[in-house]
Amino acid sequence: MPRKNAFYAQSGGVTAVINASACGVIETARKYRGEISRVYAGRNGIIGALREDLIDTSKESTAAIRGLASTPAGAFGSCRHKLRGLEENRAEYERLIEVFRAHEIHYFFYNGGGDSADTCLKVSQLSEAMGYPLQAIHIPKTIDNDLPLTDCCPGFGSVAKYVAISTKEAALDVASMCETSTKVFILEVMGRHAGWIAAASGLAAEEEGDAPHIILFPEIAFDRDKFLKRVGDTVKNQGYCVIVASEGTQYEDGSFLAESGLKDAFGHSQLGGLAPTLAQMVKDELGYKYHWAVADYLQRSARHIASLTDVKQAYDLGEAAVELALQGKNAIMPCIVRGKGQRYRWTIGEAPLEQVANREKKMPRNFITGNGFGITAAAREYLEPLIQGESYPEYSKGMPKYVRLKNVPVPRKLDTDFDI
Amino acid sequence: MPRKNAFYAQSGGVTAVINASACGVIETARKYRGEISRVYAGRNGIIGALREDLIDTSKESTAAIRGLASTPAGAFGSCRHKLRGLEENRAEYERLIEVFRAHEIHYFFYNGGGDSADTCLKVSQLSEAMGYPLQAIHIPKTIDNDLPLTDCCPGFGSVAKYVAISTKEAALDVASMCETSTKVFILEVMGRHAGWIAAASGLAAEEEGDAPHIILFPEIAFDRDKFLKRVGDTVKNQGYCVIVASEGTQYEDGSFLAESGLKDAFGHSQLGGLAPTLAQMVKDELGYKYHWAVADYLQRSARHIASLTDVKQAYDLGEAAVELALQGKNAIMPCIVRGKGQRYRWTIGEAPLEQVANREKKMPRNFITGNGFGITAAAREYLEPLIQGESYPEYSKGMPKYVRLKNVPVPRKLDTDFDI
Repeated sequence: MPRKNAFYAQSGGVTAVINASACGVIETARKYRGEISRVYAGRNGIIGALREDLIDTSKESTAAIRGLASTPAGAFGSCRHKLRGLEENRAEYERLIEVFRAHEIHYFFYNGGGDSADTCLKVSQLSEAMGYPLQAIHIPKTIDNDLPLTDCCPGFGSVAKYVAISTKEAALDVASMCETSTKVFILEVMGRHAGWIAAASGLAAEEEGDAPHIILFPEIAFDRDKFLKRVGDTVKNQGYCVIVASEGTQYEDGSFLAESGLKDAFGHSQLGGLAPTLAQMVKDELGYKYHWAVADYLQRSARHIASLTDVKQAYDLGEAAVELALQGKNAIMPCIVRGKGQRYRWTIGEAPLEQVANREKKMPRNFITGNGFGITAAAREYLEPLIQGESYPEYSKGMPKYVRLKNVPVPRKLDTDFDI
Repeated sequence: MPRKNAFYAQSGGVTAVINASACGVIETARKYRGEISRVYAGRNGIIGALREDLIDTSKESTAAIRGLASTPAGAFGSCRHKLRGLEENRAEYERLIEVFRAHEIHYFFYNGGGDSADTCLKVSQLSEAMGYPLQAIHIPKTIDNDLPLTDCCPGFGSVAKYVAISTKEAALDVASMCETSTKVFILEVMGRHAGWIAAASGLAAEEEGDAPHIILFPEIAFDRDKFLKRVGDTVKNQGYCVIVASEGTQYEDGSFLAESGLKDAFGHSQLGGLAPTLAQMVKDELGYKYHWAVADYLQRSARHIASLTDVKQAYDLGEAAVELALQGKNAIMPCIVRGKGQRYRWTIGEAPLEQVANREKKMPRNFITGNGFGITAAAREYLEPLIQGESYPEYSKGMPKYVRLKNVPVPRKLDTDFDI
């Protein structure tokens, strides 16, 4: 029987739990050594495959692979490299197949968001067209929670938990001090086109009047006057005002409130500086003392306060990807299916990649209150289960024990380099 | 025997563990009901005393008071209100004594930083001059860790832990992505005049080359060229560069890199916007893709990842304050004394307030590496014990259970108002 290796790569922005999916893939593959000889990981994602720069995960100990389940970020490196369409850039896809052939790779596990689902689909289509037997499975991952067909996306539950807790903690701080000091606090969170992360901050509120008092969603056009009026009213009524703003907050015409001018490889604008922009607006118009925070990478790497539900789902989706591949499935994405009934239950389903790629799931309008500044009971019902449970890493000397892999390279077999 | 009540107030910026000190004070006072009838807390700190707006902590359940030990921020409210000198503002001090007399308050526990140690001393002096029996004990608290005579300050260990963990997590994120994306990450932390908090980020590094690669201290004059050269060299050698910057980073002439122009009640400038300033510098000169985060209140309210050592010290200092008062002590501050020897041990000592007030303890030069960008082994030896242990709050529905007090007012006895 010929050897059949698997390739695994991490794509796009990393999360607190993407390594838990890697752990699920590798541990499960190790259970089926008869079917899957080795798992090779792409160093820095798909460009590791293009460069024939593969990592032999079989060189890592059982403990090191287990440690991935509680280590944030991308242990093999990730990348922002979008493969263009097959017509424009057939060479890149053919190179992938060439590398896979050289290393007897017949399983392709791609762990990422919408862009990588698209790549995964194209790789699957080309391998079929070229007659090279390859099963391509996409493992969902995105803190943005914007993939269709899955109830939620691994990575989101943990960032949601971090943002909800941070909002609650900072709000207690502001409430303590507002009599003589800061009256307005602004927390800027990620979320370019979808407000899921900002929405999660709404879980910090338990009673009427609790923070956050204003949530800004990319889905709701920003109205300066309405915003400032609500800030003023909240300070008058509550003594302080806590605002959680999606980085993608935008005006009616689609322009972002704060754009740094940089663009990433996908052509997305790099955002930042929304919080100070809003703070300036509040100061100029209302004169309140303010503070602002920008959580940035802290929110998506905060493994120390990851959601146990999220960690489990990330792991199980990695495990399911391998099992589905071994069942002969191709061009699919295992996904989270929410059970019916009051108590939260979830199972793993599967979604065809044609229906996943390049579609964004925004917040439904009924998840946002009529005034556009808060979340509804329906949103809370959806969000609350996703932050359930704490999954604490082990600590040593006061610091979490995050694993550091050896990342031993697989000897190269091709004598050609490939320019990316 | 006449009633003897105690007054407790929180002062200045709140922390993740100041309520643990409150818990220590109240639980200990409850053990000595014969000596201390009730503990009244100032609503919003010392202005609660000036306004005769007192909170009767005896109305809170045992469980609620216990809950303070794991609740961040100031449960009774804090304030930034510095009492001026006795000569300039005798009326405020006399008002305090008047309120204390009306409510039979003979113990004054003031929980704050250097400014409040000064107030505490003056209250003690005036009560003596006025022949009103009052014992004034200062309970140290400041995330800035800049009080003299105590080995460390409650609040600091938890912010140190938060900053060290956040730096480590964000650095893993950047390291994962740096091949094709962000190369420079800047985390702005608190620390106006002393670099203790930024220094704590150094605990994230385990091996040569680990992040943080650059720490900016207020104690070291900022040198633009040297900074940019080090950023460039680090990106060339490590592939990425993580910078942790004290908000108080300043040029040789003492001007801050980023000043918002606002000043607080103590006349301190309100800082902010250092991280984007540094990011712009890096972009303009080196062209690297960057990200930045400003932790702001998130760092000092992060009870979810508080240091167990810090929580214990905060509690024990509150307990000691009551015990010292009952021993007849006055105008002192219980403090942390570090034991000698390899294993970290601490006991509680006492420091006279004359020697505490209005003195700032900066980082010793031998805690900062020769190049000014890192911490030494001596600094690590000092810092490491302070972040030991995790003190997790209880959770319910995925969120920490932070206590919410009833804060029942004590009926007023004076018929005069007091303008602050």
